[in-house]
Amino acid sequence: MHHRSSEAIHAEDFFLEQIELEKPRDGEVLTRTRWFSLDPYLANSMRSWRGGDSRWQAGVVVGRTIGEVIESSDPRFQSGDQVLGFGGWQALEVRPAAELQRIHGNGVPVQAHLGALGSSGLTAWVGVKRILQPEPGETAVVSSAAGLVGAIAGQILRSLGCRVVGIAGGGDKCAVVVGDYGFDACIDHTAADFEAALADATPDGIDVHYENVGTKTLDPVLARMRDHGRIALCGLIAHYQDDRPIALRHFRELLMRGITLQGFRIADHSADYATARNELRDWLQAEKLVVRETVTAGLERAPQAYVDMLRGAGIGKHLVRLD
Amino acid sequence: MHHRSSEAIHAEDFFLEQIELEKPRDGEVLTRTRWFSLDPYLANSMRSWRGGDSRWQAGVVVGRTIGEVIESSDPRFQSGDQVLGFGGWQALEVRPAAELQRIHGNGVPVQAHLGALGSSGLTAWVGVKRILQPEPGETAVVSSAAGLVGAIAGQILRSLGCRVVGIAGGGDKCAVVVGDYGFDACIDHTAADFEAALADATPDGIDVHYENVGTKTLDPVLARMRDHGRIALCGLIAHYQDDRPIALRHFRELLMRGITLQGFRIADHSADYATARNELRDWLQAEKLVVRETVTAGLERAPQAYVDMLRGAGIGKHLVRLD
Repeated sequence: MHHRSSEAIHAEDFFLEQIELEKPRDGEVLTRTRWFSLDPYLANSMRSWRGGDSRWQAGVVVGRTIGEVIESSDPRFQSGDQVLGFGGWQALEVRPAAELQRIHGNGVPVQAHLGALGSSGLTAWVGVKRILQPEPGETAVVSSAAGLVGAIAGQILRSLGCRVVGIAGGGDKCAVVVGDYGFDACIDHTAADFEAALADATPDGIDVHYENVGTKTLDPVLARMRDHGRIALCGLIAHYQDDRPIALRHFRELLMRGITLQGFRIADHSADYATARNELRDWLQAEKLVVRETVTAGLERAPQAYVDMLRGAGIGKHLVRLD
Repeated sequence: MHHRSSEAIHAEDFFLEQIELEKPRDGEVLTRTRWFSLDPYLANSMRSWRGGDSRWQAGVVVGRTIGEVIESSDPRFQSGDQVLGFGGWQALEVRPAAELQRIHGNGVPVQAHLGALGSSGLTAWVGVKRILQPEPGETAVVSSAAGLVGAIAGQILRSLGCRVVGIAGGGDKCAVVVGDYGFDACIDHTAADFEAALADATPDGIDVHYENVGTKTLDPVLARMRDHGRIALCGLIAHYQDDRPIALRHFRELLMRGITLQGFRIADHSADYATARNELRDWLQAEKLVVRETVTAGLERAPQAYVDMLRGAGIGKHLVRLD
């Protein structure tokens, strides 16, 4: 799957190409892709902001995938192994074995390694436990609460004794956030009375905030922050598709209320991965952590699924499944 | 001195009023104002954002002043004492003695208590030592570097081993920032090549930033911040005169580079006042700390001096002297 660079992301800018794969050489394996993860951050590379993996230069979309080894020229892997790594959006791929990690179900669905046990779960865990460090009894807000990171962040915040208010786009999502994910309340940011509803749901103000979206959620939250509030800036999904300035009417509150806003990147916290993953796996196995998935079947449907996700369709972890 | 509430601050919105003062009652003193401090933050109350002191409700501008006691009905003070406190912009005032603090020159000019030993010095000290906590060898940027807070912040940063680049409005100010205050470099934000000059002066990027101004300085600095950079948000002087949203083209860098931006208020750090003031006094006495003053004589000239300061005229500590 390739992608033409453009200002915004459109499904019609993606195209499929048939290529001839060479056989895996020493140290390489041939994998069949089973799952790949649709993540908002990929839009950055799609727009050529920054691209780490060299495959992006060839126009191939590269993200987290789960594959099955079907031919191995490396002693570390054999046919049938399930492997996690950065892969192209493609059905088959020859890849260096050194860049892959063997995964096991361990009582949880294998695709959890792209979600609750993958970067989303780790991101939620680090953002709450390392960046926000909430106290019991504090009021916490989470934007994009129906998304996987937000859903997990909210559940961790609640486990730490916070009163947790989600923000999500639409009544259906809010119903899931409260009903399935167990948030204390959820506010629909598409409703006309959004700001009033947020004020009603946070009568004592907001102590800690987990931001995934951008101006439309951050600005009303800033207006409700208490003195010495903390904000974990985890994502700006509403602003990945353009370079326009981000405008905040209530930016002054950062100063007036002595607020700390901390941007963070999961890759800077790799020392926490094992601890976080073990805790999240325990919770999943004990069914104390609830995640929902939006699964699209088939490589050719991935572009539209990606665009739909950026526009806020679906709920929870967004995945493409290849059979 | 009174002030009519309005969207922006204009000299013609101030007016002087003659009032009859009563004699000081028990626990009160009559003071003659000698100095008052022109501070950007007063513009907030002038526009009725928030006003702590009840005198604001009567339309009187209230700020930090140094007065001389001319009649005392309180045993703690006697005629001739010099006192520091929050006073009206007026020639004479009857005030509760409990709200005043006796000050002594101690080898430094008395008006230093409104500047380097007052909230400006404390703000610079707290912002650098408690918020930024720089490491030797880091590159630091200070906006409004010709202003008193910026000038002192830069000198403290240098004392801690940072390479310090100031940003100021105009070549004359930059000459003072480098020549008098000892910054390593100073960039004129009014010059057409401002962003290129900032890049040239920070070839390795920026580790820590002390922000006093707003978008026009913060945005280019954000574009130059290194991973895990820290920003102390001390003031937003460019945005005190309106409520318009604050727009930042490079806000995304907070996320992409894992940057911490921390707003702070000096009043939250009162536990540090004594330590900071002692350190600053030692430096002043040893002439290791350089401050410049812009002094305007006469109450009737205060409004224009205030507006001029907001517009960036003058340098260093802005004071009005009453004889």
